[in-house]
Amino acid sequence: MTAVQAPPSASEVLARCRDLVRPALREAVERLHPWVAEMAGYSFGWCEVGGAPAAAPGGKGVRQALAVLGAEAAGADGRAGVPAAVAVELVHAFSLLHDDIMDGDPTRRRRPAVWKVYGTGPAVLAGDALFALAVEILAATPQGAGAVRLLSTALADLVRGQADDLLFATRPCSGPERVTPEEYRSMAEGKTGALLGCAAALGAVLGGADEPTARALDRAGRHLGVAFQLVDDVLGLWGDPAVTGKPVGGDLRERKMTYPVLAALGSPRAGGLPELLGSPERAAEAAALVEAEGGRTAALAEARAHTAAARALLARAPLAGDSAGDLFRLLDHLVDREL
Amino acid sequence: MTAVQAPPSASEVLARCRDLVRPALREAVERLHPWVAEMAGYSFGWCEVGGAPAAAPGGKGVRQALAVLGAEAAGADGRAGVPAAVAVELVHAFSLLHDDIMDGDPTRRRRPAVWKVYGTGPAVLAGDALFALAVEILAATPQGAGAVRLLSTALADLVRGQADDLLFATRPCSGPERVTPEEYRSMAEGKTGALLGCAAALGAVLGGADEPTARALDRAGRHLGVAFQLVDDVLGLWGDPAVTGKPVGGDLRERKMTYPVLAALGSPRAGGLPELLGSPERAAEAAALVEAEGGRTAALAEARAHTAAARALLARAPLAGDSAGDLFRLLDHLVDREL
Repeated sequence: MTAVQAPPSASEVLARCRDLVRPALREAVERLHPWVAEMAGYSFGWCEVGGAPAAAPGGKGVRQALAVLGAEAAGADGRAGVPAAVAVELVHAFSLLHDDIMDGDPTRRRRPAVWKVYGTGPAVLAGDALFALAVEILAATPQGAGAVRLLSTALADLVRGQADDLLFATRPCSGPERVTPEEYRSMAEGKTGALLGCAAALGAVLGGADEPTARALDRAGRHLGVAFQLVDDVLGLWGDPAVTGKPVGGDLRERKMTYPVLAALGSPRAGGLPELLGSPERAAEAAALVEAEGGRTAALAEARAHTAAARALLARAPLAGDSAGDLFRLLDHLVDREL
Repeated sequence: MTAVQAPPSASEVLARCRDLVRPALREAVERLHPWVAEMAGYSFGWCEVGGAPAAAPGGKGVRQALAVLGAEAAGADGRAGVPAAVAVELVHAFSLLHDDIMDGDPTRRRRPAVWKVYGTGPAVLAGDALFALAVEILAATPQGAGAVRLLSTALADLVRGQADDLLFATRPCSGPERVTPEEYRSMAEGKTGALLGCAAALGAVLGGADEPTARALDRAGRHLGVAFQLVDDVLGLWGDPAVTGKPVGGDLRERKMTYPVLAALGSPRAGGLPELLGSPERAAEAAALVEAEGGRTAALAEARAHTAAARALLARAPLAGDSAGDLFRLLDHLVDREL
């Protein structure tokens, strides 16, 4: 008699993929200039400043997991997706290094950001090196140019999303120039969704998937990214700082055009909101007004719509073995976290 | 009766290549996010801040010329090298944007650097976008992954050279930890030579060259880069600021480990040099001591050796048509400038 095994939880899937990818990721980083490799290792949580080994929190490894699951969805062994996983983790690390400079964020995962400890110039350089390494790794795969094209397209979208996000801060809160929810969606898809979609599609391509399957995974990852960003916005306004690691109301004080704020600004009764935004003392008042004017509800409804769209794409795609189940659980895990 | 035409001068070759590449380069930049495209256009000298057209000095276009001549050296029409030319100019622009941040240089080609006018974050982002675009363009060529590999290898060397250059400033002037001329050569080959070599080799590959020819062009370009950097060092210490656009002695005041300084530090009579370096008032005295201790002579001799090595590589390679002559004149033009 065979016991029926429960499917692995999302955390177990993430851990399995991290274990699979780690040796190749470490080997790749070791090819860098030692100083640059140290900055990369620090950002991955592998070492302290100076190079002493550490076990600081790295990321959850969502992108590498999507790449491994993408390969499995194509019917290949997850190992086929490892070069894609390494490339997308390198690109993710590169984008975090540069984003923290752009946004002036002094901390990342509860440690000083790389630019804070190594300096802005070195952090710029380390990011460039990680990007170049990711491209080199993909160019060396059998899928070569096709794989590189997927990554460079995602990168172009990521930069476009980041540029829009930086420019949103310069836009007025009302009138025809204000940021629309549609612009937000496009920004979030670029900034967060493009690399998630690319991760799954790249893994699939390396696993031998046909183009429609890779495209479905790409689109599902993009929807997941938008949903993730929306949940992030909600957590930033109403989440538990002990869990999120971010100060409550930080986005409001910085006058960030998050989705809940944009949705609330569309309400005729939110006329007082613009003057509350950016005020360090009145962040709690602003959050209450955003909630009262439906900003939280709207953001969560929008997140659910994007999760549903991602699910529908995955359900229609011909995914092999248990990969669909793993992908669904990962999706739920990412979108339902701490809400 | 046919008149015998004098071969085109290096300036004419550069102008011909710029004219050939410009439309494709402009078209590529227009694909970027408008804000990012403006920063790129500003850095190319095409527009002012705000986007108004300008005709500010761009670069000479050495890299795009090498790519076009590389294609011609392979027996192809120069147009075959245009995607390579566009990619290397984009990467060069990206590296200048980021280098100016790393080095804290407030001006570039007699205008405020991009980071000075648009901010550090936006300049980082624009550089990233240019890099991604370059990769995308090469991945779309028939040579695809092979072309991307050449570029990413050059990029890795460029980052390594830049990292070494940044770290040289932290090294002592004497003792076993001091920077050696061999370390300088490796730094200059990475920082300046890798992209010049890549430009010529990429153009050749796109023109259908075999691997030994592409490799010879790559190595010649790397020697050219070292020679170029050595001449740059000499001009920085003894050049005419009206011609170089740089303040005389700037490198000495910044305690930069240039080749003339490294060579002079090797002399037993240069014991007083370390204390002169970094002193804003004593730059002229330092330059005189570097010259007296053979720093200038050594740097120029080293530059000549690298030029000769580049010439020998080009002379041995089977280069088609007039391309060898154009390459030789370009080489002389770059190394003999204003000395």
